[in-house]
Amino acid sequence: MAGNSLGSVFRITTWGESHGRGIGVVLDGCPARVPLDEARIQHDLDRRRPGQSGISTARSESDRVEILSGVFEGETLGTPVSLFIANQGQHSHRYEPLRDLFRPGHAEATYFQKYGIYDHRGGGRASARETAARVAAGAVAKCFLATEGISIRGFTRRVGPLEARTVDLDRVEENPVRCPDPDMAGKMEALIRQVREEGDSIGGIVEVLARGVPPGLGEPVYDKMDADLAKAMMSINAVKGVEIGAGFGVAETRGSENNDPWVFEDGRIRTRTNHCGGIIGGITTGEELVVRIAVKPPSTIARPQQTVDRHGNARTISPGDAESARRHDPCICPRVVPVAEAMMAIVLADHLLRQRCTHPGPHGNHAPDR
Amino acid sequence: MAGNSLGSVFRITTWGESHGRGIGVVLDGCPARVPLDEARIQHDLDRRRPGQSGISTARSESDRVEILSGVFEGETLGTPVSLFIANQGQHSHRYEPLRDLFRPGHAEATYFQKYGIYDHRGGGRASARETAARVAAGAVAKCFLATEGISIRGFTRRVGPLEARTVDLDRVEENPVRCPDPDMAGKMEALIRQVREEGDSIGGIVEVLARGVPPGLGEPVYDKMDADLAKAMMSINAVKGVEIGAGFGVAETRGSENNDPWVFEDGRIRTRTNHCGGIIGGITTGEELVVRIAVKPPSTIARPQQTVDRHGNARTISPGDAESARRHDPCICPRVVPVAEAMMAIVLADHLLRQRCTHPGPHGNHAPDR
Amino acid sequence: MAGNSLGSVFRITTWGESHGRGIGVVLDGCPARVPLDEARIQHDLDRRRPGQSGISTARSESDRVEILSGVFEGETLGTPVSLFIANQGQHSHRYEPLRDLFRPGHAEATYFQKYGIYDHRGGGRASARETAARVAAGAVAKCFLATEGISIRGFTRRVGPLEARTVDLDRVEENPVRCPDPDMAGKMEALIRQVREEGDSIGGIVEVLARGVPPGLGEPVYDKMDADLAKAMMSINAVKGVEIGAGFGVAETRGSENNDPWVFEDGRIRTRTNHCGGIIGGITTGEELVVRIAVKPPSTIARPQQTVDRHGNARTISPGDAESARRHDPCICPRVVPVAEAMMAIVLADHLLRQRCTHPGPHGNHAPDR
Amino acid sequence: MAGNSLGSVFRITTWGESHGRGIGVVLDGCPARVPLDEARIQHDLDRRRPGQSGISTARSESDRVEILSGVFEGETLGTPVSLFIANQGQHSHRYEPLRDLFRPGHAEATYFQKYGIYDHRGGGRASARETAARVAAGAVAKCFLATEGISIRGFTRRVGPLEARTVDLDRVEENPVRCPDPDMAGKMEALIRQVREEGDSIGGIVEVLARGVPPGLGEPVYDKMDADLAKAMMSINAVKGVEIGAGFGVAETRGSENNDPWVFEDGRIRTRTNHCGGIIGGITTGEELVVRIAVKPPSTIARPQQTVDRHGNARTISPGDAESARRHDPCICPRVVPVAEAMMAIVLADHLLRQRCTHPGPHGNHAPDR
Repeated sequence: MAGNSLGSVFRITTWGESHGRGIGVVLDGCPARVPLDEARIQHDLDRRRPGQSGISTARSESDRVEILSGVFEGETLGTPVSLFIANQGQHSHRYEPLRDLFRPGHAEATYFQKYGIYDHRGGGRASARETAARVAAGAVAKCFLATEGISIRGFTRRVGPLEARTVDLDRVEENPVRCPDPDMAGKMEALIRQVREEGDSIGGIVEVLARGVPPGLGEPVYDKMDADLAKAMMSINAVKGVEIGAGFGVAETRGSENNDPWVFEDGRIRTRTNHCGGIIGGITTGEELVVRIAVKPPSTIARPQQTVDRHGNARTISPGDAESARRHDPCICPRVVPVAEAMMAIVLADHLLRQRCTHPGPHGNHAPDR
Repeated sequence: MAGNSLGSVFRITTWGESHGRGIGVVLDGCPARVPLDEARIQHDLDRRRPGQSGISTARSESDRVEILSGVFEGETLGTPVSLFIANQGQHSHRYEPLRDLFRPGHAEATYFQKYGIYDHRGGGRASARETAARVAAGAVAKCFLATEGISIRGFTRRVGPLEARTVDLDRVEENPVRCPDPDMAGKMEALIRQVREEGDSIGGIVEVLARGVPPGLGEPVYDKMDADLAKAMMSINAVKGVEIGAGFGVAETRGSENNDPWVFEDGRIRTRTNHCGGIIGGITTGEELVVRIAVKPPSTIARPQQTVDRHGNARTISPGDAESARRHDPCICPRVVPVAEAMMAIVLADHLLRQRCTHPGPHGNHAPDR
Repeated sequence: MAGNSLGSVFRITTWGESHGRGIGVVLDGCPARVPLDEARIQHDLDRRRPGQSGISTARSESDRVEILSGVFEGETLGTPVSLFIANQGQHSHRYEPLRDLFRPGHAEATYFQKYGIYDHRGGGRASARETAARVAAGAVAKCFLATEGISIRGFTRRVGPLEARTVDLDRVEENPVRCPDPDMAGKMEALIRQVREEGDSIGGIVEVLARGVPPGLGEPVYDKMDADLAKAMMSINAVKGVEIGAGFGVAETRGSENNDPWVFEDGRIRTRTNHCGGIIGGITTGEELVVRIAVKPPSTIARPQQTVDRHGNARTISPGDAESARRHDPCICPRVVPVAEAMMAIVLADHLLRQRCTHPGPHGNHAPDR
Repeated sequence: MAGNSLGSVFRITTWGESHGRGIGVVLDGCPARVPLDEARIQHDLDRRRPGQSGISTARSESDRVEILSGVFEGETLGTPVSLFIANQGQHSHRYEPLRDLFRPGHAEATYFQKYGIYDHRGGGRASARETAARVAAGAVAKCFLATEGISIRGFTRRVGPLEARTVDLDRVEENPVRCPDPDMAGKMEALIRQVREEGDSIGGIVEVLARGVPPGLGEPVYDKMDADLAKAMMSINAVKGVEIGAGFGVAETRGSENNDPWVFEDGRIRTRTNHCGGIIGGITTGEELVVRIAVKPPSTIARPQQTVDRHGNARTISPGDAESARRHDPCICPRVVPVAEAMMAIVLADHLLRQRCTHPGPHGNHAPDR
């Protein structure tokens, strides 16, 4: 009800403020006997971590995860998995001049209007630091999904006007933008550096794919697979749009083009094309899941901005104030990639388990009635 | 868990198949003493009803709502409100030739893979007929929201390549497309007629606005207002994308353009611009909520299509099969408008009540600390 | 949240007031392909129905159930099952003199304090009539459980000071008290008649057993099997206590007596005794489930009672007022039996499905590690 | 779904095994601006702590709580409150001989049957150590309830055959049994010592009262106040029965005795007697809440017991095995008292907030209509 949980069966609850003791997640509903250790989780945390490359924030956060419960002799127990990441080197004093200030595009003002109180240091609970807990939980989800043959891959599809034209998933992690088109990757990186030089920031589009997803996942009519993916993705900081398959492109197409014909192939019912992004009627078809999200330009920029404080007084935020813009990302897409993967992993793990509840058989899917 | 409910406090559960006895909704959590009668609900149902105009389906469904519980002497009791809409004139025999067939773009195949059984008549549970129950529930939500000064309005923003350039909300219900730009309305209508002549269908974009929404609604970090709106909208049949405020447009903007400066105006904290669509950090700012959804072209078209049946055999669906395409909509946007309004109303009613739980004061919002 | 739903996977939502259009239940989460028809449900409704015997109320309610959705050609679809029971012959005018009155032991006063409004006719939503919807839903649960080899049987263990000393389940339905001890049944019946002659009512104890329950059901640490049974049973009108196995008797025993030794028998791990009532650590052991509930004497009696009205004025309710006490039960235990069975069936169906989610294998239980 | 959460608005999720890194609770939905510090929580933890007195276990656990999130400058933020209690001095090696053994009355066998794996050390997740997390969360609930004028007090009503005849709440904490009858306290203590000398354990009854509870709390018809209390109490380790007000005593009473007459007193509607324990129709009346629970004799005793191991082999547990019975409590009632108080506090906090959602006014209760 208070909003810090996601999922029905595979359910996460995250907690923590940016400058408190730490952040964490309790994961209830992970099946028993999934192999799990800290190294598997750390791998994804390192992909999200600040300070990975020349185009991300200069802040350095080590983000070491600790498993506090739910794992015994290398396997999950079926009891809650509690993960903890200590906050370190937060330099809270730098935020003292911002104590009363509402930063443009940031959530101090809305938190204050909602709760009557907020932690002004580094965004408090609204900080993107919370996404580290998502990534940790998502890594557990990925471990479980791997046992079912499901894999998830994300990348930066677009930065400002620059869009990847080819998708080579093997090249994504080779460049700091996480762009799957090696030619475009360099241009994107140059643009991000230029935007930073200008003291500004820029938006983009991140895409996430899931392979090996069995047909039959998703619970009509409100917990459709696409509905739950939309919620999970839109809950990520800075995301302003979500689309599935052809997405907003469907507005311009005809039914005769957009319909994906059913075929019988590889011993199962499939669609010949995949404009639907792997979901029809809210249920997976067995084809690749395709989700794209619109990511806004980071709100923290190195230019003076007009705003007000909590007393309603006009104020100017100048780049030198408290937090250096160098400590923030000019384009957040590369670091959103592992977060978006995590959200998809959590939703898929949840629906895989939900499907088991009511529908017998492997993954609950039914072979054609031959 | 099985997916037929939405909302936490203001919670709806819908039921019913297209060709069964009827469809309905149970609404649990509507506050006591809200004035309610069948006429208020019927008004919105009539806006969604098939056969309203020359550009929608020729099917005629009267869709009369009955209140079965929860209302006493003209006011809600605080107990569940059960609404029922009988199915009439469904011509189920027309679907007999389709019994084993998986129609392209329709959900028979995925329902079969999920459940091992499906009602082949008129889409069964996957039919857009289910949205009548949403509209009925949404009408109750609107009655409640009206007592709080909140109003919701939707319209067709785009049909294929044609986009409304002006928004005059007073003109929306004057044309069958529900386009807020009177000049464009005629062109859109002509395009839809032409598409139908070609035996095809076309997609579009629907936009929904909410006014009078107090600041402070939305529950970070997973049940953010935008996250819950995204889920609710994406759960509507045929929707493939959702965006908030500037939406996918943020991919191309800079932070210096996109940030909405905070100002103190009209005795409260506001944003000067509203690129964020009324939501920051997942919490309403008090400005207008702005949501747009991508609506795919209807899957039923009057052209032969290749497909398979449940046994995996190749089959062709020809226009003359069972259901005439004339009984379907060439563009569903005009009828999606009241459905999208309903979803927004349900989400807002829910969050207004959720905000009351934990946060005292009118709507729980806090005045600036002057 | 508003309290009219129960269950996580197998989830019921009931609605309806005693003197409204009818009552009903929407059951979301029933697995697909369970054989279901109205006759199976009607059977249990008839066991709960008023007017079955000389010792229950003289009111006659036919309580015919209609399946409105979720069943297709004799099998469940996996979509919501909506059940409806019309209200008939409610004689609402008889309650007009009671419009402002708070009846002792009845809930008009607390409903008024909670909601500021209530339906005064026949108890409104607080009426035990709501339990018909429970029984209908429970009948569906029993159909599902039967496919898993689980059966549920309830009986009247005690009426006032009279307690059954033997339990012969085959004799329960042979006497109007539903007492499993034929010798005691006649004495109980005589006592109930005498109490009615005195214009009074009397309490008792109902016991419910479940057989064939696999080990491994129940979700520690809050949704333990016993915790969920306690909630479900305590939610029944007139129930003031719940106990499992030895129940309150444990207060007087020693650990050396009360511990149930583990043994290996019939190829599985069992307990030699069953003081725990089939549940240890909140998880079923595979032995018989044993639950008892304390049922208060019905509040409606044929004697003058002092009370107040909604304005706070002192008032006397006399037997002749509006509703005749003959229209109420002097002891409700016989009619609580099918209700308590229904609640146990719903809880077991839910936990059987919950167990499937996260734990592979038949019922998720693990054979001993031989 | 997996069962480690309780509550709807004020919602706790606990985690941790007895011999893991520690245990903890995440509390989501605590209102903002409740004064909170570690000392307030520590107070109740110390009341539950092992080793407080000569009649409890000789184990010594310091159980220091740490607040990891959700509190800023002495007040709650409205964000999740994460509490952590490190495990210390667990002597896990003592449990090595028990690795494969199913202890009578303990849950290794059922956990194994459910999950196929269990942590054999000290009961793992099934250990009563988990109740420390409940007590910590309950202390936060009590802080919130105190701001609303609600207080909760528990005591030991009965030990074996010995029952308190008077209730002086001021004397409860003066004796190690937490008995409210000073005369009986000494006898109870002597009995417990004797039982321990005999290498045995003994059961009892704990009672909890709440004062200052406003009328109107509880959500019919499934989340009734009594239903939710029953679940919360039954979820406590070792509890086998729950009763409200007159409880199982109602089985022997007449309606004319048991009905609580409504009166108008102190400017509000009240009941003259309180046989109902402060709840009618599942909604609080405004009178004192009265709940009693049956607590079984601890399963760990200092006598040889027959059992089996996970391979199904017959085994004998002897007192000298691994864990000394001196490290366990001969009667758990005194330490259950703060746990039962915590459960009541959590349920009341939750329902107080739930009531706010849908029902305006102070606590949503309605004054008589004078």
